[in-house]
Amino acid sequence: MSNPRSDLIVFAIGGNALVRSGEKGTFDEQYHNVQVVVKQIVEFMKNDNCKNRIVLTHGNGPQVGATLVRHRLADDYYPSMPLYVCTAETQGFIGYIIEQALQDELDRANMNKNVTTLLTRVIVDSNDPAFLNPTKPIGETFDDEMTDVLLRKEIVQLKKRNVGSGGTKFKLLVPSPKPITIVNYEAINSLVNAGFIVVACGGGGIPVLKKNWNTIGIDAVIDKDLASERLATSIGASTLVLLTNVDGIYRNYGKQDQELIDTISIGTDFEQKLGSQDLESGSIGPKVQASVSFIRNGGREAIVCSLQHLSNALSGISGTHFFR
Amino acid sequence: MSNPRSDLIVFAIGGNALVRSGEKGTFDEQYHNVQVVVKQIVEFMKNDNCKNRIVLTHGNGPQVGATLVRHRLADDYYPSMPLYVCTAETQGFIGYIIEQALQDELDRANMNKNVTTLLTRVIVDSNDPAFLNPTKPIGETFDDEMTDVLLRKEIVQLKKRNVGSGGTKFKLLVPSPKPITIVNYEAINSLVNAGFIVVACGGGGIPVLKKNWNTIGIDAVIDKDLASERLATSIGASTLVLLTNVDGIYRNYGKQDQELIDTISIGTDFEQKLGSQDLESGSIGPKVQASVSFIRNGGREAIVCSLQHLSNALSGISGTHFFR
Repeated sequence: MSNPRSDLIVFAIGGNALVRSGEKGTFDEQYHNVQVVVKQIVEFMKNDNCKNRIVLTHGNGPQVGATLVRHRLADDYYPSMPLYVCTAETQGFIGYIIEQALQDELDRANMNKNVTTLLTRVIVDSNDPAFLNPTKPIGETFDDEMTDVLLRKEIVQLKKRNVGSGGTKFKLLVPSPKPITIVNYEAINSLVNAGFIVVACGGGGIPVLKKNWNTIGIDAVIDKDLASERLATSIGASTLVLLTNVDGIYRNYGKQDQELIDTISIGTDFEQKLGSQDLESGSIGPKVQASVSFIRNGGREAIVCSLQHLSNALSGISGTHFFR
Repeated sequence: MSNPRSDLIVFAIGGNALVRSGEKGTFDEQYHNVQVVVKQIVEFMKNDNCKNRIVLTHGNGPQVGATLVRHRLADDYYPSMPLYVCTAETQGFIGYIIEQALQDELDRANMNKNVTTLLTRVIVDSNDPAFLNPTKPIGETFDDEMTDVLLRKEIVQLKKRNVGSGGTKFKLLVPSPKPITIVNYEAINSLVNAGFIVVACGGGGIPVLKKNWNTIGIDAVIDKDLASERLATSIGASTLVLLTNVDGIYRNYGKQDQELIDTISIGTDFEQKLGSQDLESGSIGPKVQASVSFIRNGGREAIVCSLQHLSNALSGISGTHFFR
């Protein structure tokens, strides 16, 4: 096609899509959930006759929390690794299960496509205010026993959080700085152009700082939607699809008059359409920010939709669509 | 160059090179050790004027042992993942530190090269006899306290091992089946041909079985030298360099008359030169097997050498060199 942006889609999958409410997060549960996700992706590819090249990104909220706790609980025996190493480890784990489940699904559908998974580092700014105010919850909400164990282990990021009727419980809250540059975008681009489906930017990427001629990891977890925007823009994707567990973005979300928004034009009706809601916290804020940035940086379309309605959303029938 | 095999080198780095004797395996220790390794690689590249394309593989013996223990110790809180997931996690961790340290070293040397890291799955055979006889030690040798803890956690692979004068101690022994096919070799090849330095095949690769249209992970750790041979052969490398902590391969190793062998010609003097030694166990056996297979499969040269003498070994001055 003449437009280089016309046939490359970045799909961002939530880490929560792999550990459902009420699940323990066993390997079998997570693998089953991945299979559900990749079936939808392959279904879309079939409908689309493989016209689009595809990159998949994913979150790691539940998994990086579990990984960090494992490191801390074993630290009498083995030195605990920093949080950014935990994200590197989840890129290995989650990347592996997405790659394998997707490749099998493609093979069963007789589609001649290879999946590959790249580690991804993402540069952040050491002066990002997020480092002074950890707000991103990772892992589960802990009961009193686990909280005691973790407090003894001096997980400094552990913060009390109001979780509603049950009073206060504990969650791990970590800094979530803005992603600036995807270190590995050229390798991702190279593989995409060679015809591979690429899994990348896992857990929002491994956060790193540049200091003179040294790169160092930093303890934080980057929002995967914002990192996916950086990646999609860097590799000239036409479309950014942010998959979530709701149907799209709502006007006055959480209020009585909430209403699904089908299209948002960045130039004209952006603010009015969203109505009054907090876009700074929660999971929908980064999705709106990522979508708006993607369009402002030259992307054609950003879509926020549920996995179940993926094919419909890509045909324009459901989800919230951001345009210029 | 006319010979497609003439300018691609696969370097295999031992997992033990990153956790030295007497070290705890902290992040700082492992990162420092990686920096020592990559300095030697970049030194070689400078001497070589970047004529050669490069792939790095690495082991994960110490790291996958630590990871498995972390999973088991935390399994009252989070479900323990299978051993093959632990290898996927070490691909994330070790791949990350190699990529970052190497990229920084290349940037400091003003060499215009990008490093990238790929997850790698490797197909093994479910009928491999290794599954009936776990022989590969992973992690450290455990003291009595840790052994008790792990026995309570029912790590079934835990085996008593004679460790010399101190009597018996415990090590984790896991099956180490032969690698058959590197699932991801085409992606690795694609990146190498696009000019990237590729880190791949970490920990010998994530071991998987093919069953009809399903791929499933299997609890085992593949020898990284044997996996590196499979990869080097698949991507048409000219040279396979197996880095270790000794100067090369010795005739009658461990005996009074041991003697470093500088060249071994597979066709003629192979058996005589090696003398009497056990090539089935220990770390030198797989290096000989991998070297011999690589040459028999069309490789030009396999080298077993120490990291310290890497540049000399590649100039033919030190190390053991396998030819046709």
